[in-house]
Amino acid sequence: MNIEVWSDFVCPFCYIGKRRLESALEQFQHSDDIELAYKSYELDPEAEVNPGQNMHEYLAAKKGMSYEQAKSMNESLGEQAAEVGLTYHFDSMQHTNTFDAHRVAKYAAEKGKGKEMTERLLKAYFTDSELISDHATLIKLAGEVGLDEDDVTALLKVDDYAIHVRADEEQARQLGVQGVPFFVFNEKYAVSGAQPQEVFTEVLQKVWDEENEKPVLQSLDPKKSKTTYCTDEGCETVEDD
Amino acid sequence: MNIEVWSDFVCPFCYIGKRRLESALEQFQHSDDIELAYKSYELDPEAEVNPGQNMHEYLAAKKGMSYEQAKSMNESLGEQAAEVGLTYHFDSMQHTNTFDAHRVAKYAAEKGKGKEMTERLLKAYFTDSELISDHATLIKLAGEVGLDEDDVTALLKVDDYAIHVRADEEQARQLGVQGVPFFVFNEKYAVSGAQPQEVFTEVLQKVWDEENEKPVLQSLDPKKSKTTYCTDEGCETVEDD
Repeated sequence: MNIEVWSDFVCPFCYIGKRRLESALEQFQHSDDIELAYKSYELDPEAEVNPGQNMHEYLAAKKGMSYEQAKSMNESLGEQAAEVGLTYHFDSMQHTNTFDAHRVAKYAAEKGKGKEMTERLLKAYFTDSELISDHATLIKLAGEVGLDEDDVTALLKVDDYAIHVRADEEQARQLGVQGVPFFVFNEKYAVSGAQPQEVFTEVLQKVWDEENEKPVLQSLDPKKSKTTYCTDEGCETVEDD
Repeated sequence: MNIEVWSDFVCPFCYIGKRRLESALEQFQHSDDIELAYKSYELDPEAEVNPGQNMHEYLAAKKGMSYEQAKSMNESLGEQAAEVGLTYHFDSMQHTNTFDAHRVAKYAAEKGKGKEMTERLLKAYFTDSELISDHATLIKLAGEVGLDEDDVTALLKVDDYAIHVRADEEQARQLGVQGVPFFVFNEKYAVSGAQPQEVFTEVLQKVWDEENEKPVLQSLDPKKSKTTYCTDEGCETVEDD
């Protein structure tokens, strides 16, 4: 089975949904046979690299609500994160553009460190209040998951892996993705949003069962035709009517 | 697309069906992208290596009919073969056990000569009146399609490739194959018997179209659940009822 997860590093429900899927996978008996890949998705491709607002101001401006309302919404998100063991520090979180972070994540995936880099970037943003558009920060985080810092320094200087990020986003558009997280199982089944863990558990079992059921041949013999074949009894011509 | 064809070298409709499928493939525009493999099937695993009867006697005894009736049935088969350009010499045909011929064909398939060997064995039996259980004959035929005669000599001495023949036959049993030829497209669609060429043409197009249609994601979002996701407008919790 394969699972593709479209998500952004500044998406509160993406990190929560990731933890719920991971919990479901931990309890799933066939999780060793599952390939999971993270796909790039930018919630706000036009986001400034460092808007200098705190997250409550940012949300209040975006939604046209009061600072207190925005803060309350963020706190509610933080509580949901806490339920799956995550710590969101909205007071010091630095909202920013994630394009370069996605480029580094695509490079990491190529080096077999896609999962580690995705986790590290989410934690850096939500928990550690790091500015994940900053190149020095990205290089440091990449080094922490075992990637070559010189490689990352070089790729950030030019537009390496931009094409990979754009390809993921184009694929999301073709699939009709409206928001993230967005989970696709075996290129066939979609789950939208940070669904409860039990939903992922059900989906994993369903897709697994379907993948492993004995294939049933569908007969394409046409009606009203003459069938000629041989059996151990001899050769026959059978005319259907 | 892949096509698997279960057939036996002494099966009159298998050779005819093979020609009809080949004609359909010749006219099919995507035939270069099709992988075709022949699978072993013995119509009569208990057949003697050389029963010494001619085919009219053999059929008369098997079916409990007169020699003249059997001869007439065989002539009718010969006419159907002639319609697709094949020559069946029932008067001199030597009915026999095909297990060793299947073993050689499985070896040939491994060497990339499966199609050539299958064609050569069918022609040897139906047109050239060869005894295709005879080891010297099998070695000669294998040599004619470019196989190593020493290899074939060696494998015939022991039971090499018997396991491959048995595996094909076991697979046929699991698929519920009752007679041959039996055609399976993409492990999914079955056509039984030497259907008319236009049936194969239709099936090829249908399977091709299905294989190449844009996959449509099926949503597995459960009803009555709380969906949480983020869009470019912000993060939302949507409660379905």
